[in-house]
Amino acid sequence: MTSTTGPGHHMAREMLEQPRVLRALADRAEEIAATVAAVAPEPPAGTVIVARGSSDHAAVYARYLLEYAIGRPVALAAPSLYTRYDHRGDLTGWMAIGVSQSGATPEIVETLGAMGRAGARTLALTNVAGSALAEAADAALVLDAGDEIAVPATKTLTAQFAAFAHVAAGLGPVPWAPADWDGVVGAVDAALDDPDPVDALASRLGGIEELLVVARGFLYPAALEVGLKVAETNGIHTTGYSSADLRHGPIAVAEPGLHALCLVAAGPVARDVGEVAAALRARGVAVHAITEDANLVPAAEDVVPVASGVPEALAPLVQLVRGQQLARSLALVRGVDPDTPRGLNKVTLTT
Amino acid sequence: MTSTTGPGHHMAREMLEQPRVLRALADRAEEIAATVAAVAPEPPAGTVIVARGSSDHAAVYARYLLEYAIGRPVALAAPSLYTRYDHRGDLTGWMAIGVSQSGATPEIVETLGAMGRAGARTLALTNVAGSALAEAADAALVLDAGDEIAVPATKTLTAQFAAFAHVAAGLGPVPWAPADWDGVVGAVDAALDDPDPVDALASRLGGIEELLVVARGFLYPAALEVGLKVAETNGIHTTGYSSADLRHGPIAVAEPGLHALCLVAAGPVARDVGEVAAALRARGVAVHAITEDANLVPAAEDVVPVASGVPEALAPLVQLVRGQQLARSLALVRGVDPDTPRGLNKVTLTT
Repeated sequence: MTSTTGPGHHMAREMLEQPRVLRALADRAEEIAATVAAVAPEPPAGTVIVARGSSDHAAVYARYLLEYAIGRPVALAAPSLYTRYDHRGDLTGWMAIGVSQSGATPEIVETLGAMGRAGARTLALTNVAGSALAEAADAALVLDAGDEIAVPATKTLTAQFAAFAHVAAGLGPVPWAPADWDGVVGAVDAALDDPDPVDALASRLGGIEELLVVARGFLYPAALEVGLKVAETNGIHTTGYSSADLRHGPIAVAEPGLHALCLVAAGPVARDVGEVAAALRARGVAVHAITEDANLVPAAEDVVPVASGVPEALAPLVQLVRGQQLARSLALVRGVDPDTPRGLNKVTLTT
Repeated sequence: MTSTTGPGHHMAREMLEQPRVLRALADRAEEIAATVAAVAPEPPAGTVIVARGSSDHAAVYARYLLEYAIGRPVALAAPSLYTRYDHRGDLTGWMAIGVSQSGATPEIVETLGAMGRAGARTLALTNVAGSALAEAADAALVLDAGDEIAVPATKTLTAQFAAFAHVAAGLGPVPWAPADWDGVVGAVDAALDDPDPVDALASRLGGIEELLVVARGFLYPAALEVGLKVAETNGIHTTGYSSADLRHGPIAVAEPGLHALCLVAAGPVARDVGEVAAALRARGVAVHAITEDANLVPAAEDVVPVASGVPEALAPLVQLVRGQQLARSLALVRGVDPDTPRGLNKVTLTT
């Protein structure tokens, strides 16, 4: 069991709340679907998501799930068009979703408000009831993940990912069944109960200055988020890549001494990631993986296991938790307090 | 004048063709607008762009310009939904634009074709007439940028950016006038005639292993592209950031010894980038800038000039060329042949 005292104890405790947070959101699935149905034009002509930072990765996850459910591409907003360029759009028939843990980032509030005035129906995803973002929207989903003291967001971000999955289920068909949430909660619980494989990987990675995190499809947003989490908690240069993008150019930076972490679940993109993993290893890169099935990534030297049986589209929720464990454990190995890495503030007032 | 013999002479020659390429596209503005008008549903319910790699940065540029022109957010496709997850959307009333220099990347061709079968009107932007992408679309804009031998894409990518600007102008109001293209061509010419400030910066940056490229708004996609170009030509870890995103977390990795390059034009986001530049410098980062007005970035130690008078929304075309010069010059300083950096192939057959 991860220590919940000493450096990083806030982050550890908040990570341990995730099974409860995920269970509570799963129990609210029907309520969330009803809220979404009341807000969304049916069907929305288009959907746009307004987010920044970690929330932006939840938005990328939503891009996959909502397009799957609605059948139309989902745009990520370019907030500066609204906050800086005085853009006036016509969003009649559109749905706009703003997502912010604090609900207090002025840029997100301002952009969602402007989209509402341009005709969009607006939904806020936030952890704070009565926040400016909740007030600015036609309806708000308050995630009730509780206070977060550690600077690296863990349970609040997992709650955003899960909430978007429930929003998608409220909008159309999704590639999982309601009962699959039991498996998600169980897999997150199991991961939190078994930190040893992550600690072993963190010891191995202690001295790195750079890490590639690689995935594709539904797991791609998890790669972005795990990359950011490891970077912001450890002050190292870590980037999340789609395996298809990596192969299309940035693989040029791959060379011996570099480490790559592949996030893989059983599904139609597993072979793509496995092939890129092999290509990285052939270039001398040390490859590691988080996966339910080590056979999907034969190139991996170290494999952090996750429970099997979680549908690929929900696998990011489990992989996020493994990534948090890695970010925290790596910080402890490097002598950094994961609760308060340098350079980060809890609320960023991007205007 | 940049040498057009010796290492990197292909890249140098191709860079020097850019004024001609930009002029030719500007001369075709009406033809492009007519093609777009014939393809686009009027107005499109939504727009989605299918791209990878450098073309993806042209797509991000298009996201800003087309949303400005059409008044609705523009989505970037998640190709794996179509190529791996057997997704069936309903894109009736939508416009889908596929962009690929070679027109031969199977993933882009397959995704655009699937979107057309789902009801979208489809447009191809490619450099190769008769390519698979051109054949798969309802209409094709062939950019006629000519052959490109050097592995790092220069003129073909600039042509994609410019073509998207003309597409936007064919769809609605844009923040420039047709006559402004004279200024763009002149500014690109002037930049190519004056490589010395870039060579001086490249000498200064010769030993770096990492570079942040920072911009916001219309110049953000140029930051992404300059970051990728420097990375793929030099094998160093270079990342393009929106100043707003950088401030929202990744600034944690900023520390003495790091270098940042800010792309800045006069306009409503200049102050944001100037402030982030100051914050980076306060953390000990060496800040450099490409700008028409050094006063916009007082924190910059080195300033590479560009001609003034180009509207901010077209400034990326000029900044891209400065970025190419930097990528090439840096490679020469580091003893790499910019024409054939390791690890890259000209056409990536992502499927």
